[in-house]
Amino acid sequence: MPEALPSAGEILAFATGLADAARPVAMRHFRTELDIIAKADASPVTLADRAIEALLRERIAARFPEHGIVGEEMGVTPGEGPVWVIDPIDGTKSFVTGLPLFGTLIALLDGGRPLVGVIDMPALGERWAGMPGAATFNGAPTRASTCRSLAAARFFTTTPDGFSGSDAARYRRLVDRVGIRRFCGDCYAYGLLASGHCDLVAETGLQPYDYLALVPVIEAAGGVITDWAGSALTLDSDGRVLAAATPDLHEAALDILQDRGP
Amino acid sequence: MPEALPSAGEILAFATGLADAARPVAMRHFRTELDIIAKADASPVTLADRAIEALLRERIAARFPEHGIVGEEMGVTPGEGPVWVIDPIDGTKSFVTGLPLFGTLIALLDGGRPLVGVIDMPALGERWAGMPGAATFNGAPTRASTCRSLAAARFFTTTPDGFSGSDAARYRRLVDRVGIRRFCGDCYAYGLLASGHCDLVAETGLQPYDYLALVPVIEAAGGVITDWAGSALTLDSDGRVLAAATPDLHEAALDILQDRGP
Repeated sequence: MPEALPSAGEILAFATGLADAARPVAMRHFRTELDIIAKADASPVTLADRAIEALLRERIAARFPEHGIVGEEMGVTPGEGPVWVIDPIDGTKSFVTGLPLFGTLIALLDGGRPLVGVIDMPALGERWAGMPGAATFNGAPTRASTCRSLAAARFFTTTPDGFSGSDAARYRRLVDRVGIRRFCGDCYAYGLLASGHCDLVAETGLQPYDYLALVPVIEAAGGVITDWAGSALTLDSDGRVLAAATPDLHEAALDILQDRGP
Repeated sequence: MPEALPSAGEILAFATGLADAARPVAMRHFRTELDIIAKADASPVTLADRAIEALLRERIAARFPEHGIVGEEMGVTPGEGPVWVIDPIDGTKSFVTGLPLFGTLIALLDGGRPLVGVIDMPALGERWAGMPGAATFNGAPTRASTCRSLAAARFFTTTPDGFSGSDAARYRRLVDRVGIRRFCGDCYAYGLLASGHCDLVAETGLQPYDYLALVPVIEAAGGVITDWAGSALTLDSDGRVLAAATPDLHEAALDILQDRGP
């Protein structure tokens, strides 16, 4: 009989333990390879990526042998009930360019919805963790901003190259309305949003391991994170992600992304 | 009679002392203001910017009363001979969005050419320093990469929004040829170049306090940094900056930026 799921707090403690274990592995490889021959538009796969995923899978399988696992590098391990979703190195382009903005993402889905999430930044020593009712930054409670208007919003997207077709036009109309725009960050932008330093993030083309860990952090920090239709993010979402510090700001951005804006 | 200029090593030690003094001032203000109302396209001016520049000006005037000073916030203090050029917070948009990628830039010009330069990253605890023949990262010798081809180059520019008119087309042709592109960094991109993690940076619209401190670091690390005509950077340059890890890569980028490329 499968073990009953421990409390969210216990699950989150286990997940942050996973992040603790991943950090030194990431740092062992960071900034060690120079002159990487990069294929344009390919996400460079690093040794760290594989080593971390193998380590986390081993630990998860030892503690929760019946759980499923979805990872960036090694695909899907089927299981019964809860599913771990992990991205060992989110922001591989940052990793291979010496930028400390890469992170390790860990989520547990219960009934298809993300219950706990960890955004860990090994090179910065910064960590966001979230579960229902509690979002923390380096262990202390953290909170999204109160920004309600696009004109005042500090907007992040990892790269303006990431939008195609009609999404590119929607993105352009959105970015033309915001106060400040920054083009970097990967998972870090969502952490900054959970701590009130960024107000709005919109991206496309994300994978479940890129976005599911963000959900418990942002929701518990008072923010809103959905797909571009305003629906909850699941394993089956289409990779469009919109995160906002407040429901009003989220709605204002949704109006534009759904072509119903002013 | 003006004091004879100390050795480059002594000057650099004084300049890194300035950076030491600036760090806690920057960190006292970082991530303390939430919900900043930003004016689009305006560089937010922070309390840290002004406090650091005042502090550095005071220290420079006390040690080298006859030197000139050019700063971002308080303009030009005329002097005889050498000129200090300082940017208290380079990357103010990073600063106000909680990104630790802002830096303090300090250069001394002797005979109009940058003799020493410091790129200090207060929130990361990272520092590049350069003088003729010696570039360091956190005190240890550092070196640009050996990348010679655009196709393999890791390219940075702070934002793709920064190019206008014919520069936008040149930029587009350049960015379409590189291996990896990242859109962030301000001064940090040039530091990463000096340490072999980034190979190429191209920007426009920079001010002397944005680029002069970069020159001694990049040149001593084996890289090349000029304007888009291939000329040395001075107080009077037009704000177009091109930095490359190797002369070959610099030449390949110049070919494109001067419309003579293949």
